[in-house]
Amino acid sequence: MSKHRFSQEELDGVYRAIYQRRDMRHFLPDPISEELLERLLAAAHMAPSVGLMQPWRFIRITDKHLRKRIHALVEQERQRTADALNERRDAFMKLKVEGLLDCAEVLVVSLMNHREEHIFGRRTLPEMDLASVSCAIQNIWLAARAEGIGVGWVSLFSPDELALLLDMPKGSKPVAILCIGHVDQFYDEPMLEQEKWAYRGKLSDFIMENGWE
Amino acid sequence: MSKHRFSQEELDGVYRAIYQRRDMRHFLPDPISEELLERLLAAAHMAPSVGLMQPWRFIRITDKHLRKRIHALVEQERQRTADALNERRDAFMKLKVEGLLDCAEVLVVSLMNHREEHIFGRRTLPEMDLASVSCAIQNIWLAARAEGIGVGWVSLFSPDELALLLDMPKGSKPVAILCIGHVDQFYDEPMLEQEKWAYRGKLSDFIMENGWE
Repeated sequence: MSKHRFSQEELDGVYRAIYQRRDMRHFLPDPISEELLERLLAAAHMAPSVGLMQPWRFIRITDKHLRKRIHALVEQERQRTADALNERRDAFMKLKVEGLLDCAEVLVVSLMNHREEHIFGRRTLPEMDLASVSCAIQNIWLAARAEGIGVGWVSLFSPDELALLLDMPKGSKPVAILCIGHVDQFYDEPMLEQEKWAYRGKLSDFIMENGWE
Repeated sequence: MSKHRFSQEELDGVYRAIYQRRDMRHFLPDPISEELLERLLAAAHMAPSVGLMQPWRFIRITDKHLRKRIHALVEQERQRTADALNERRDAFMKLKVEGLLDCAEVLVVSLMNHREEHIFGRRTLPEMDLASVSCAIQNIWLAARAEGIGVGWVSLFSPDELALLLDMPKGSKPVAILCIGHVDQFYDEPMLEQEKWAYRGKLSDFIMENGWE
């Protein structure tokens, strides 16, 4: 056992957050405190980033009218996705895919502009900036779960149209609309499993040795 | 306070993992147990994924000769990156950027093939598959930190050449070489800060309200 290992209860807390985190779409209207939101954003900012470029930018949506316009963009993409799904159209349309109008807080998370200036770790894999932003969002998700707060990552939107709505500069790109708030309960299983849309595979099927098998 | 909030010590464990996680490049040669590696991979598999597509694939490198060939690919890209950095070339070449030959375990993490079959949440943002894989890697990173184990994410490689080396099918793509193992100590600050390569910005500079400011 490593001498750097956390106490058993701290370690249990980390695994509990990982196992009980859910992509939430059902929220209660109760507000969350400024202090809690600040803790989540500070957790995001502690994420790893390629070459320490810190490519994440957070736009907090406090304007109710703007939140409705963002919701309209998501609803438009939900319809377009349904049409693209062909035979799974009806099953998809029955799913609740976001809780944008109900949750306490909405954050748009974006890749920064001027990313081309950062080469370290990105010369052959420029998309590592998105990898860093995703780690930051996972930090929010896990910290929020430990705080008892739900988070949903909505990616059903046109990034160009959302960028236009939020007056974002060339080179930046929104990659997530996060819904954050209190929940009545966390789903026991991912909602897409409960709704029989998809199932988690067996871990051993995802692991190979010394090459693709 | 949410009724779903963890105990104080569990919550502290989650924040401690988030704050004390580091991108490690210095490792001790001691092995890690199969059980611990399995716990880390199971934590990865609990990550969120867009439309529950679970796009992550893990290739464990147990062949020492293969590990050396992977290291050679990374070394080649390190030189190419240095050349691309121009005036920062010498500073970059002094940095230790990976611990591939020293760490206990090496995992190549890849995007799966046949991703085009998954449309939910990806019609306008196909790169959400990488976002999901990145959340899985962040789970490994945080769980490992709580276990007292270091992880480094190496992205200095040509994905085409690594895919060829590991006999990976068309459509798949390696996005990370993870170095995992015991460490003498975790860096107090990100190594790139200690080495004065870059600095963490002030959180408030990363947050905007209702639009880009």
